[in-house]
Amino acid sequence: MWLLYQFPLCPFSRKIRLLMSEKNIPYELRREDPWAATDLFFNLNPAGRTPVVVNEQKSLVLADSRAIAEYFEETVDHAPMINGTAAQRAEIRRLVALFDENFYADVTAPLLSERMKKRLVLRQPPDSRVLREAMKLAHGHLDYLDWLIDNRPWVAGSTMSMADLAAAAQISVADYLGGIDWAGHEQSRGWYAVFKSRPSFRPLLAERMDVIKPPPHYALLDG
Amino acid sequence: MWLLYQFPLCPFSRKIRLLMSEKNIPYELRREDPWAATDLFFNLNPAGRTPVVVNEQKSLVLADSRAIAEYFEETVDHAPMINGTAAQRAEIRRLVALFDENFYADVTAPLLSERMKKRLVLRQPPDSRVLREAMKLAHGHLDYLDWLIDNRPWVAGSTMSMADLAAAAQISVADYLGGIDWAGHEQSRGWYAVFKSRPSFRPLLAERMDVIKPPPHYALLDG
Repeated sequence: MWLLYQFPLCPFSRKIRLLMSEKNIPYELRREDPWAATDLFFNLNPAGRTPVVVNEQKSLVLADSRAIAEYFEETVDHAPMINGTAAQRAEIRRLVALFDENFYADVTAPLLSERMKKRLVLRQPPDSRVLREAMKLAHGHLDYLDWLIDNRPWVAGSTMSMADLAAAAQISVADYLGGIDWAGHEQSRGWYAVFKSRPSFRPLLAERMDVIKPPPHYALLDG
Repeated sequence: MWLLYQFPLCPFSRKIRLLMSEKNIPYELRREDPWAATDLFFNLNPAGRTPVVVNEQKSLVLADSRAIAEYFEETVDHAPMINGTAAQRAEIRRLVALFDENFYADVTAPLLSERMKKRLVLRQPPDSRVLREAMKLAHGHLDYLDWLIDNRPWVAGSTMSMADLAAAAQISVADYLGGIDWAGHEQSRGWYAVFKSRPSFRPLLAERMDVIKPPPHYALLDG
């Protein structure tokens, strides 16, 4: 049984939860609040970020969500998620980076800052200009996702891959925080609805963060 | 011959230049200024970021520096840079992420913004508070690098790896921009001096960015 240090609204933790569930790797959750920054956690990961996974013998500590994903891809054959030719694998990794870095910086990070950190930690009202800009940029990212889904069955090609997990993880956190307007994004919405019904995704959708409530459509399978 | 779209002070471009040179993969440079944001470049990479590599037949476009590195690792046997057991490979990738994400966000990005973008694009003076904070955080990162080099011959283990290339790429840009104070970091300095003398590194150190000059020690082998 692996230990997964994570935070419910950390999109990178969600990506690894989805991956481990899809691969049938058993794990137990340990919550690590990003604002706590305990010495214990910095000893596990000098980058101070979730997720971190630790094996049962505590002899192996893995940090950084992409490094963790590559490790499980190399060691667990079931449900390959970085699959195909070298070029196809490069396309999967390019799209993982696009969601991990660009979508996160444009959409998820400002939403987390305005709707979670300001509420739970700073006790300030959100800045509506920042929220509007994040939601505008979300539309641009969903336009690109619509285009991808128009051209291929899954985000990076003919089978489900880490690119789908990375995209779904970011979008699910943004959707929880009310930052996703699905109007006009039928392709993305259809792809996401399929995802929401997967057994790997159900536990994430059932969780609720203290004080902060998601919009009514968030956990609905046809939302 | 590969085409490498890059920018002289982009640390991720430098990482890929070092990698391709170490692996003896022939390439030609195309400069892409980050502030230009041409449609042509966004068509190559929707993330709008350097580096991008394109093969001679123009049938393959690779974007995102980590995806590019994994592609060349999978397709070119010479000079493996993500080598060893799954756990060792995870350690290499964790450290690549630490330099690509944390060092970049704490040190390289604010230096590029204050000392390059403000000078060349915005025509504003740098904010000395931001510069002081970046240099303070650089010391923290170099302390960790000192500790790594004290415990292993190379950044991630017993052989040179992508972690060394990622660290050297970030540090070289920060050093160009006057953000590195080597005092008190003898281990890091010794490791970096070895790196500077490598044939893969010499062309980078010889380049000069328009208007912006590096400090005198920048290209010296014993600097």
